[in-house]
Amino acid sequence: MVEFDDSFRRQLRDLFVWRRDVRRFRSDLLPDGAIDRLIETACLSPSVGLSQPWRFVTVDESARRRDVIDDFKACNADALNTYAGERAARYAALKLSGLEQAPGHLAVFADKISDIGHGLGRATMPETIEYSVVAAITAMWLAARADGIGLGWVSILSPDRIHAILDVPASWKFVAYLCIGYPEAECDQPELEKAKWEHRREASEFTLRR
Amino acid sequence: MVEFDDSFRRQLRDLFVWRRDVRRFRSDLLPDGAIDRLIETACLSPSVGLSQPWRFVTVDESARRRDVIDDFKACNADALNTYAGERAARYAALKLSGLEQAPGHLAVFADKISDIGHGLGRATMPETIEYSVVAAITAMWLAARADGIGLGWVSILSPDRIHAILDVPASWKFVAYLCIGYPEAECDQPELEKAKWEHRREASEFTLRR
Repeated sequence: MVEFDDSFRRQLRDLFVWRRDVRRFRSDLLPDGAIDRLIETACLSPSVGLSQPWRFVTVDESARRRDVIDDFKACNADALNTYAGERAARYAALKLSGLEQAPGHLAVFADKISDIGHGLGRATMPETIEYSVVAAITAMWLAARADGIGLGWVSILSPDRIHAILDVPASWKFVAYLCIGYPEAECDQPELEKAKWEHRREASEFTLRR
Repeated sequence: MVEFDDSFRRQLRDLFVWRRDVRRFRSDLLPDGAIDRLIETACLSPSVGLSQPWRFVTVDESARRRDVIDDFKACNADALNTYAGERAARYAALKLSGLEQAPGHLAVFADKISDIGHGLGRATMPETIEYSVVAAITAMWLAARADGIGLGWVSILSPDRIHAILDVPASWKFVAYLCIGYPEAECDQPELEKAKWEHRREASEFTLRR
């Protein structure tokens, strides 16, 4: 049995505060095996019915990376078109991915038909399969930051296109595309807050009692 | 800027290993404000476009708790009916929730139409709203364990029924129902593995290269 002390709890809070979505990476390569170690940590996460539905695809081939970047550019141009005026100008100025610079690319999928776990816990809420994968990504994100490694989650992508580019099994649902590398700078404030796109609210705004 | 050392990284790994889905709670109440502090920690999590879509409902009224427990029992009976023979007997023997004992009940929803974040990052993947809420729950789960508090995620529930019982806005999607309290015992092994329902696999089984 393991107990944690105040010093650890303070550092854990620092980890939550300083974990950021990183879009600006240094060009240094990651140490050998760094991404595999993060995947191993991710697999310590909870999953519905112990289904372990996480499927990780490290993307190293430059042609596939290029196709992913092209898909991001197309989706981002479409997104820009949904804004107008001042908001469009501000959207256009945002840096929303580090796909071009990040030394590591990792796509993460959820296997919707895996029989690991014998279907337990997901009959009324099949989406708990994807949720289990998100829990694993969250753990990996925190572990990466503790190693001084930055992670950026890119969601401005077409799931069908990513599925085709990476040629993965049909039952795998695309959950996230992660850029991984050493960050240019550390920060305790979200990029979108620094850019005055949005600000963080108090927890009390989001809480009801029943 | 904050850096983390080997000692913290070792303890963080211990936290991942000893974070468990808890179904057996002691009857002691949580300290005043403990759940609010966990919610505050959860709100440090990443969210798509800084949308902060997490909505927390602390459930204290005994009539509502009773209705939730009744819904769990109905859904669990339905689930049992999907298994046969030896597997059904083993399912029936599992303890799958601590709803009756847990001093804290917390329902978590995702606001699908919040305009916080101005829609950024979710045009092609609207499910990133729910994913952001799952990231927040994961952070809360880890922070709870560091405090010696156990959390159990109950998914054997009918989302429509929970929505009605808790009378929340129509745009909120039900993500999780959490039991929170002090665990009867600590463990580094998933309940479903101890019960020989399923076993954990190696990370390498879940990894492809492209």
